[in-house]
Amino acid sequence: MKVLVNGQLIERSEASIDLEDRGYQFGDGIYEVIRVYKGVLFGLREHAERFFRSAAEIGMSLPFSIEDLEWDLQKLVQENAVSEGAVYIQTTRGVAPRKHQYESGLKPQTTAYTFTVKKPEQEQAYGVAAITDEDLRWLRCDIKSLNLLYNVMTKQKAYEAGAFETILLRDGTVTEGTSSNVYVVINGTVRTHPANRLILNGITRMNILGLIKKNGIELEETPVSEEELRQAEEIFISSTTAEIIPVVTLDGESVGSGEPGPVTKQLQAAFQESIQQAASIS
Amino acid sequence: MKVLVNGQLIERSEASIDLEDRGYQFGDGIYEVIRVYKGVLFGLREHAERFFRSAAEIGMSLPFSIEDLEWDLQKLVQENAVSEGAVYIQTTRGVAPRKHQYESGLKPQTTAYTFTVKKPEQEQAYGVAAITDEDLRWLRCDIKSLNLLYNVMTKQKAYEAGAFETILLRDGTVTEGTSSNVYVVINGTVRTHPANRLILNGITRMNILGLIKKNGIELEETPVSEEELRQAEEIFISSTTAEIIPVVTLDGESVGSGEPGPVTKQLQAAFQESIQQAASIS
Repeated sequence: MKVLVNGQLIERSEASIDLEDRGYQFGDGIYEVIRVYKGVLFGLREHAERFFRSAAEIGMSLPFSIEDLEWDLQKLVQENAVSEGAVYIQTTRGVAPRKHQYESGLKPQTTAYTFTVKKPEQEQAYGVAAITDEDLRWLRCDIKSLNLLYNVMTKQKAYEAGAFETILLRDGTVTEGTSSNVYVVINGTVRTHPANRLILNGITRMNILGLIKKNGIELEETPVSEEELRQAEEIFISSTTAEIIPVVTLDGESVGSGEPGPVTKQLQAAFQESIQQAASIS
Repeated sequence: MKVLVNGQLIERSEASIDLEDRGYQFGDGIYEVIRVYKGVLFGLREHAERFFRSAAEIGMSLPFSIEDLEWDLQKLVQENAVSEGAVYIQTTRGVAPRKHQYESGLKPQTTAYTFTVKKPEQEQAYGVAAITDEDLRWLRCDIKSLNLLYNVMTKQKAYEAGAFETILLRDGTVTEGTSSNVYVVINGTVRTHPANRLILNGITRMNILGLIKKNGIELEETPVSEEELRQAEEIFISSTTAEIIPVVTLDGESVGSGEPGPVTKQLQAAFQESIQQAASIS
């Protein structure tokens, strides 16, 4: 198995990180997860662009172009003969004696590797349980950074409760999940948090918003209150690896009928079609 | 130079981190910085206890006792013959295929190393410039975690403005600095943010609060408004490596007389005395 380290493909066993890497001491870096369908990186350009945007937001210059990045990731996927899987990539600000501020001239450290992904077919078909928790994260959740400790802590609560995801509430309104965007259906309208600094604007989210419009479904990007969440007809979540998964119980209570709803199912079908198209075009 | 890796002293050049260390991908870990004076780790027990508290707060069991930790760090300091310096130590949750939730049985990864510290004598004597910025961090700042990206981003603003520290304001009140606690003197009373989830309760802070009481100075642990901050007679900051440093300009405006004030100087003298005592007792 090969991994990508600063533009070079090397054996996984030869890759190592310095203990004074700013990624290790400050979480000073950014990342992306990109799905591979039939050997093709899905939404590669969108992920690459967001990676550059995250870097810019934290004041980090990446030592390669978007085209370099795309090329390197495609090479990695080919080298490891990935068919159904994903690529994880992160870049940190570099290695330096520890202090919060940084000097110019640091060498960013980029690591990327592939892994296989089993499409969560059961979860997509039958839905999952979710719990709710307070959103105590920082106020720049629009940056896809390596500072994910609260996501870890609250996702763990879901895991230990036998649930799939935690839906976060800040000041009484739904923001997103620990690693997914959240949507509710109320009176047939899909509602989801606007893409501001309180959520990560998922690539899958952007695809889904396009499919919602294309399918003539009503859409509102407005915050959803906790009360609205608990009375929703349907709830679903999305992410690169989850795609679209219905939430059928919330904190142990049934959502709507307690089964995946018609709007969710319609969007799931449309999303699968878009994957098929992307994989056959490339 | 030796470093401590999972209880073993090894050469710095032989130490390396796995790219799937949860510390590298999620900032899923905790840390401490402990000052060494005349070869003695200052406040070692307090730092070790806080390390264990941080671990407990993120649901991580450390695979060693407080006594083991103290012993290992003392061994490290001796081995590297550190006289005036500090130890940095961190523990992450372990190495595992990336997913937010974690399984039991992960092996936490501990790394520690020493470095020399030049006492910031100029800054302590003449004071420093500080700027202010919004506190956008998570709402568990009481945990000394590796999620420090916002601290990095806003400390960098100070650095680029030629200032020493950024004082953070949340909802119009002072919380702390990016790597220090903040105190203001108003009508002769020292005020500082209460030790709740919005600040890190510094070991130096706790020492200083003791010295304030011992010296018969009035103390209030209450939030300070932005207006009060800007009209303060004195402002000072504290941390393990800074000790006590006066802030003499804030956002370019003089603080009080524009020189270190009498309360700050009194506490600086008392603090130096406490260091002398600790180093001579051990």
